[in-house]
Amino acid sequence: MKVLITGGAGFLGARLARELLQRGRLRGQRIERLVLADLAEARDPALREDARVQMQVGDLLGQLPVLAAEPFDAVFHLASAVSAECEADFDLGLRSNLDATRALLDACRVQSSRGGPVPLFVFSSSVAVYGSDPALPLPAVVDDRTLPTPQSSYGIHKFICEQLVADYTRKGYIDGRAARLMTVSVRPGRPNGAASSFLSGIVREPLAGQHAVCPVAPDTAVALASPATTMAGLIAVAEASREAFGGRTALNLPALTVTVQQMLDALREVGGEEARRLVRFEPDAAIARIVGGWPSRFDNARASSLGLTPDRDFYSVVRQYVRDHREAVRNAQALSSC
Amino acid sequence: MKVLITGGAGFLGARLARELLQRGRLRGQRIERLVLADLAEARDPALREDARVQMQVGDLLGQLPVLAAEPFDAVFHLASAVSAECEADFDLGLRSNLDATRALLDACRVQSSRGGPVPLFVFSSSVAVYGSDPALPLPAVVDDRTLPTPQSSYGIHKFICEQLVADYTRKGYIDGRAARLMTVSVRPGRPNGAASSFLSGIVREPLAGQHAVCPVAPDTAVALASPATTMAGLIAVAEASREAFGGRTALNLPALTVTVQQMLDALREVGGEEARRLVRFEPDAAIARIVGGWPSRFDNARASSLGLTPDRDFYSVVRQYVRDHREAVRNAQALSSC
Repeated sequence: MKVLITGGAGFLGARLARELLQRGRLRGQRIERLVLADLAEARDPALREDARVQMQVGDLLGQLPVLAAEPFDAVFHLASAVSAECEADFDLGLRSNLDATRALLDACRVQSSRGGPVPLFVFSSSVAVYGSDPALPLPAVVDDRTLPTPQSSYGIHKFICEQLVADYTRKGYIDGRAARLMTVSVRPGRPNGAASSFLSGIVREPLAGQHAVCPVAPDTAVALASPATTMAGLIAVAEASREAFGGRTALNLPALTVTVQQMLDALREVGGEEARRLVRFEPDAAIARIVGGWPSRFDNARASSLGLTPDRDFYSVVRQYVRDHREAVRNAQALSSC
Repeated sequence: MKVLITGGAGFLGARLARELLQRGRLRGQRIERLVLADLAEARDPALREDARVQMQVGDLLGQLPVLAAEPFDAVFHLASAVSAECEADFDLGLRSNLDATRALLDACRVQSSRGGPVPLFVFSSSVAVYGSDPALPLPAVVDDRTLPTPQSSYGIHKFICEQLVADYTRKGYIDGRAARLMTVSVRPGRPNGAASSFLSGIVREPLAGQHAVCPVAPDTAVALASPATTMAGLIAVAEASREAFGGRTALNLPALTVTVQQMLDALREVGGEEARRLVRFEPDAAIARIVGGWPSRFDNARASSLGLTPDRDFYSVVRQYVRDHREAVRNAQALSSC
């Protein structure tokens, strides 16, 4: 089978690609070709050296005629302009997130309408669809029936694309499933402009021997998932039967609720007092307001029916990071204990 | 002020136009110009002869450059391909409902971004955003926080446009409000292909001395609003302050819950046994399934905070129809009693 991952050179896309290549199969079929479409080539040697992998570099909208020339059996649509980009450039957000998704869906529709395979279409949505409309505040515990009231263009785009995926599925053009990713922590790499950036930074930087700033109060609760749990979620959503997926409404992937204090306690447990001391609190009202508007508690029942569970605790999340990214860790205690 | 009504020649658009012209003012300002954009010219002499009215005939997307040449102070966006059209022609639905709405919103954004007025933008959404996803059935009573799971392309388009209106409003490009219209009954005119068509037909046809078929069981409950109540809703939404409107989430206009049996009882009360005998039951499983999937009970609290109330009972709805459309009524008892 032929599989497409848009955003395939990004952190999650490349990790998904490695996972699919290791499994070798999806929905019982052998993966013959794996196309990674992104603005840049994947740098990971495991991807560059695999004969099944084909890189397709460029703007997704521009690449679509090439991508659609041959039919796909499965599409993981992860490519997206991120929230800060969408807030800074409204047109770019609409183009990258709405127009590109609709064009990709239409390419799938053309494929299946012409008698080609009805592609599996896994859409990577986001917990960012939730935001706190002061007039209609979110309930204390969010589930898949909670009405999203997005407070960012990025969240609006994700929610709109969920609707399109549901309708193209209802019409039989695709076999679509939308999965809402939680905030992924611990992400490797460097801080970015996202309000959630510190949720990886306050672990990653101290373990690399660097200072980090925490802009919110220690009792701030957040909903997170590790990269491994996120991957397990995307793959379970792809493997599920339609009956098991349960309707066409987007699925919230499982979330671990932790406070920032619990995150720092786990950091100390893995990296010692030396690592913990590298984090200082510097309140930032704007970030605190944004993060405080995100839901922190989820009812994971539907995800659980697919066999998905949240990370056990943040300690295991930190250990996962150290195991996966030893090259980025300088903290001796962490390296010896994981 | 200059006001645009898209779909301004349709039943609701023309009625809204007459109402605005009679009031003469909107949000405290005098209405100097009222532009009615539609595929055809409005036929109503009251509109054709009013010097304030300008007709703009043609496809909305095609007309936009002309419409956007001068700034608007208020837009009522009612134009839409209806559900049967969207199911029959997927591309037409996307173009008429999504592309046209986005282009209209972008024209407003260009206007306000260039220092012109930030237009009031009232988007006519629909109760059709609700549909019963078997895996996530609707609650017994629907309110504005109930998650819509549309089961038609039309419902998907309306729900997507609500999201766009919310985001363009958040960004300050428009002062947007989305109001979900209930099934309007009694509509004048002729039966159309909509599954809800009979909800007007079983009153309108007997009062005109014609036979009508009811495709659902007498105990079927439905949520309706009369044309006058629907107009009052659109105007209250336009007149409300942002604080009174309460956030950017779409507002369900008030709904009267009645059973088909209660509708027929009201028909008998107004038109006598002679009218009632013209309706026969001919069950249609497909229509019964669609109508049964619609929510029939609404919590009207938010609409009520804007001073809006549902129709008192269906008897008053039938009387309203007879008063407004005496030319279409042949039933002597109805004409003499209303």
